[in-house]
Amino acid sequence: MNETIQFINNRVSIRKFNNKPIDEKIMDNIIHAAMRAPTAGNMMLYSIIKIQDKDMLKKLSETCDHQPFIGNSDTALLFAVDLYKWHKYFLLNKVPEYAKRTNRVYEGPTLGDCILGINDALIAAQSAVIAAESYGVGSCYIGDIMENIEVHRQLLNLPKYVFPATLIVFGNYDHQPKLRSRFAKEFVVFDEKYKSLSDDEIKEMFKEQEAKFNSNPVSDFENFAQQFYNRKIGSDFFKEMNRSLKEIMKDFK
Amino acid sequence: MNETIQFINNRVSIRKFNNKPIDEKIMDNIIHAAMRAPTAGNMMLYSIIKIQDKDMLKKLSETCDHQPFIGNSDTALLFAVDLYKWHKYFLLNKVPEYAKRTNRVYEGPTLGDCILGINDALIAAQSAVIAAESYGVGSCYIGDIMENIEVHRQLLNLPKYVFPATLIVFGNYDHQPKLRSRFAKEFVVFDEKYKSLSDDEIKEMFKEQEAKFNSNPVSDFENFAQQFYNRKIGSDFFKEMNRSLKEIMKDFK
Repeated sequence: MNETIQFINNRVSIRKFNNKPIDEKIMDNIIHAAMRAPTAGNMMLYSIIKIQDKDMLKKLSETCDHQPFIGNSDTALLFAVDLYKWHKYFLLNKVPEYAKRTNRVYEGPTLGDCILGINDALIAAQSAVIAAESYGVGSCYIGDIMENIEVHRQLLNLPKYVFPATLIVFGNYDHQPKLRSRFAKEFVVFDEKYKSLSDDEIKEMFKEQEAKFNSNPVSDFENFAQQFYNRKIGSDFFKEMNRSLKEIMKDFK
Repeated sequence: MNETIQFINNRVSIRKFNNKPIDEKIMDNIIHAAMRAPTAGNMMLYSIIKIQDKDMLKKLSETCDHQPFIGNSDTALLFAVDLYKWHKYFLLNKVPEYAKRTNRVYEGPTLGDCILGINDALIAAQSAVIAAESYGVGSCYIGDIMENIEVHRQLLNLPKYVFPATLIVFGNYDHQPKLRSRFAKEFVVFDEKYKSLSDDEIKEMFKEQEAKFNSNPVSDFENFAQQFYNRKIGSDFFKEMNRSLKEIMKDFK
């Protein structure tokens, strides 16, 4: 195991930061590492907003499903899908006219651009996370930044064709974080073709979660599945994420 | 600069592989590293299909926009968004009935699940890419795996709620790859809020591409923007990606 593999394998999301600021040079290196990530057609369909203003971090801790630790982070990097820049570049260079001349229609940013942009943004984000880990800087993804699109657009000045793909908060920390277990490899990795798991295999896959639930059952729920649904997929924040994403996708044909 | 940062910063997409097989233990470690990547709510909304069958790699080299080097890779990892497993788990554990009892409706996988799944898959994918780089193994993302969904579903046995997010091909290589430049930081990274670039700034952003085009102009196009549009966004494969993604998204409410 080389050192890089160890960083990747031992990285745990950090939600409790100390007050020690992140060295400025280190944050620059993290951002540079993100920008070196591979990107579809070298298009870099994203922008990164570096947020260190305490008031803004506090606001985001509210708008991102009320998670106070966001406000205690040192720096947040917003990875935003950005089709504004390429779209504007195309308009400035008469791409719509060129398309018409060649019997095509330039429609502006499409669903394909949107999804490629999400890919680009998340690939860059994970490079930033691993880079941070290599410096001992803690990080946590905040998927909730996809909620409340209207509020986030206003707070962060996002124009049309720019939307938050993910937010990562960074900070130093003192505690020794504990690794979380993952589903067993046999349920995640398949050889050559996909294998649809049987009912028994699905039950086996969730054995650890079920055991945990059964050791401390909550009377509202018959099983872990119902408890989890209630906490995540069936929750208000998830409903809001769905609404917000639908709003976001309207911009992309 | 620590070693991990150097791996991240010096990594280049490899499209020419030699015939030396990737050590099996190294490929196992790359996959393990992917599975250690952070994932929304520890849900791991993806599956990884490890493809080493030469016939399949050749087929994918055709279905992914005719790129022969895919067929010359040692291993391809398909990162597929996978809501099949959780959906089945929820059905097995009477989540729809529980939802009804608590005045909600379990609708099956939604847009939010779909996008979180794409995030999970790409985050894991980039961990695999950086892990590979740390072993000197070359890699290249193939976004074209999002095209031709019907063909890929059949080839890879993908059930409903499972679709390709990205494909990465891996292999050993002999050449010394050259770093590609990125847009300058001032056009990618903004402080505290998004900054909409002016016309002049957009022109400045694409200066290098324009200079390259102008040094070797192609008479069909007035500028780099039109050439690039013709090659990517306005091309048949991009049209197919849009069609295929629309088809994929139909499964998610």
